[in-house]
This record gives sequence, structure tokens and C-alpha cells, in this order.
Amino acid sequence: MKEKIVGIIGGMGPDATVDLFQKILRATPAKTDQEHLRIIIDCNSKIPDRTAHIMRGEENPGPYLVSSAKLLEKAGVDVMVMPCNAAHTWHDEIQASVGVPVLHIMKAAAEYAVERWPNMKKIGLLAAPSTVKIGIYHRTFAERGIEVIAPDEKHQDMTTKAIFAVKAGQTGPDIQKLAADAGEHLAAQGAEAVIAGCTEIPLILEDGDISVPVVDATRALAIAAVKFARGM
Amino acid sequence: MKEKIVGIIGGMGPDATVDLFQKILRATPAKTDQEHLRIIIDCNSKIPDRTAHIMRGEENPGPYLVSSAKLLEKAGVDVMVMPCNAAHTWHDEIQASVGVPVLHIMKAAAEYAVERWPNMKKIGLLAAPSTVKIGIYHRTFAERGIEVIAPDEKHQDMTTKAIFAVKAGQTGPDIQKLAADAGEHLAAQGAEAVIAGCTEIPLILEDGDISVPVVDATRALAIAAVKFARGM
Repeated sequence: MKEKIVGIIGGMGPDATVDLFQKILRATPAKTDQEHLRIIIDCNSKIPDRTAHIMRGEENPGPYLVSSAKLLEKAGVDVMVMPCNAAHTWHDEIQASVGVPVLHIMKAAAEYAVERWPNMKKIGLLAAPSTVKIGIYHRTFAERGIEVIAPDEKHQDMTTKAIFAVKAGQTGPDIQKLAADAGEHLAAQGAEAVIAGCTEIPLILEDGDISVPVVDATRALAIAAVKFARGM
Repeated sequence: MKEKIVGIIGGMGPDATVDLFQKILRATPAKTDQEHLRIIIDCNSKIPDRTAHIMRGEENPGPYLVSSAKLLEKAGVDVMVMPCNAAHTWHDEIQASVGVPVLHIMKAAAEYAVERWPNMKKIGLLAAPSTVKIGIYHRTFAERGIEVIAPDEKHQDMTTKAIFAVKAGQTGPDIQKLAADAGEHLAAQGAEAVIAGCTEIPLILEDGDISVPVVDATRALAIAAVKFARGM
């Protein structure tokens, strides 16, 4: 079976795009350049902010996302991934605009979690407020019998602050602490694990940093992309 | 002046492509996603090994490089960069095949070095044997009054071993030591600085690791790309 070419609808943000790119490389068994997958990336940081649209009605990023997907399809990709959770608001619209599959980060995260913890009942969500509001994590995990809980207002604000700090290039200990404290807050509410459900979060919070496991949605998406591309 | 879209002819290797991508982001003054440049990357790891062709006459990567450049031009990039030193053997051929500028890593490295050390007379080259053989570093620096010296056979073999180890995902202390020892060998021959002239080298040898400065050709190329794209 011929290996597929992976397309990345990127730029949201650019560092999260680097992170997914690296996680795809790490998830690929390769000892030479040539054993790696071909990956085509449109790192279009100019796409309007997803949270600003969902929360405050600013410019709609949808048409930009569709345009990036079409560019990648024209360039020859066989499957696409999108390292931005909030952008999955437009997943159906993007999928309808191209003839190749667009993998889904929430589904990848849910499958990753269920495989590791088949008896899990409650998971916490660290994400942008837009991702919390659209509720795709809640629905996707509920279908698998897992309740998703989001932080209270204070801890959501800390999470949001951390996300936009990462986008501004700040990843120091004070920013890491914002995400870790919000994660511990979710654990204290009974979350058995915490989803790093914004692609900026894994850049400041890793599995092992808090008292419960961290489900890195970006890594789950990378693994799903490699499996799909290698026909597994 | 409208910002230009940067294209990356990548995959040689994929980790070096991640490295250039990150160095372009770090070289861009940006506090939000949208202030970053748009970057389109063809990480085509399937391109045949450059060193295997130049040293042993194996499959010619030239047509693959031209095809990647054309793909990027069609996708709309305004300028291209190529994070592989040996691939610059085909720079003229690639440039002739597209209507947008293809920046040149050796020229970027030379300009970076001359700007910092206007009185430099001798610089060492840590690169794949193919890059040493094609002599572009030697000619480009000679035009600026700087002599390039390459390692002796033993230290070249250590450098080559380190490069292919990085491509296989090995970047540990033993591999770092191979590159550092080869760098010190060049310093002992009178090199006032050492060029990290293979895009795998900056992944294991940084400025500060040896007794003379390390000129990171990948970083020089990233800076040149950002300057060009922002019209500076």
C-alpha cells in the first residue's frame, strides 16, 4: 500500500504547528530521511483568531480554513490534519470542501483516552473558552461514556491567559504554573485525567507535570495521522 | 509593502526542516499568530539522499527538488529557502525552474559571518562530505576574503557519522561529542569560527559548545528569509 501524503492546515498558532509536525516525525518509525512521510504544511498564521470570532463575533476564519484545505488538496495531499482545537468548529465545512479525509482532533483524543483508560468516567478540559463553548469535546467524549468538565471562571481565565502568552512566545515557569494550577483544579473536581485541548497547552504542560495524566490532543492527532498515512 | 509568503523545500532531513521553520518563527517579531509570516512547507523526505548521489552516483535528487519548487510556486509562495546545504548543488537548476527567488544558504551564512567578523581570514566547515566536495562554501567565502578549511579524513568521517546519526533520531551526548571534537580540530588548524554547514549539525552543536563561535547556516538562512519576506 502506497504511503499517503499528510497535509497540515497550520498557523493556529505557528508554534503549535511546529509541535504537531515534530510529533508526526516522532510517531514515525524511521532511521533515514526517506522512511519519513511526505508532509505538506500551510502555516497560514494570517487566519483570523478563532476565539475572537466564537466569543466576540470578529472576522470569521471559516473561509480561510477552506481556502487552506483546498490549497493542500491541490498540492496533492491524501489526508489532512488541523493543529487547532477551536478551528474544529469548521471541521464539517472544511471536510465538505475537499475530496480527502480531514482527521478530527477531538475524536483522535477520545480514541487515545479510551484505549488507555477503558473505565474512565470523568476527564477535565484545558482549552480556549471558544473550544469549551462549542462543546465538541463534551459531545465526543460523552458518546464514549466519559463526562468532560471545564474549569470554573477563575481557572478558565488562567488557562486563556496561558494560551495567549504562548502565542506571544512566552513559555516560562510562571506561564507553565497557570496551566498546571488549572489542571490541578480539574483533578480536585474528580477529573481522572486532563485533556490538553488547545494546541498551545502541550507547549507548557506535559504528562507528569500534574497529579493526573495529561492527554495531549496534538500527540493523539499525530498518531492518528501516521497510522492513517501508513495504512494501519 | 505586502509581506511575502515563504516556501520551504524541505524534508532533507525532516528534523532540519523543523529547525529552519522554528528559526524563522524566532527571527520574526510577533506577539500574535497573525503577526507571523505565512510559510508553506513541502517536507518531502522521499527526495533521494544528496550525499549518496554526489559521492556514489546514486539516484539524482535534482528532478525531485525542481518538482518541489514548482509545487510551492503553484501554491503561491513569493520566495523559497532550502534547509539542506548539499542540495545547493542544484540551486541554479531550481532557480531556473521557478519565477520567484530561491535564497542561497551559503551566501546567507557568508553574509552573516562577514557582518559579525569583518576581519575574519579563516573559517572551518563542518558539513557532509558532499557539501565539502562541491566547494560552494569555499568559493562563496573566498569571494569575501575568507579561506574555508575542511576537516582531515578522520574528523570528516566523525562529522559524517554524526550527521547520519541525527537523521536516525540520535542526538545524545556521544553524537554531540563527534561534532564538537571535529569543530575543535578545525579551531586547532586556525579556524576563527566553524560553520555548521549541514542542517543536521545545529541540532547537535550550538554556539558556545566549542572554543570558537559556531556559524549556524540554518539560522542565517532563516534571518535572510524573514528580512526578504518583510521587505527589509
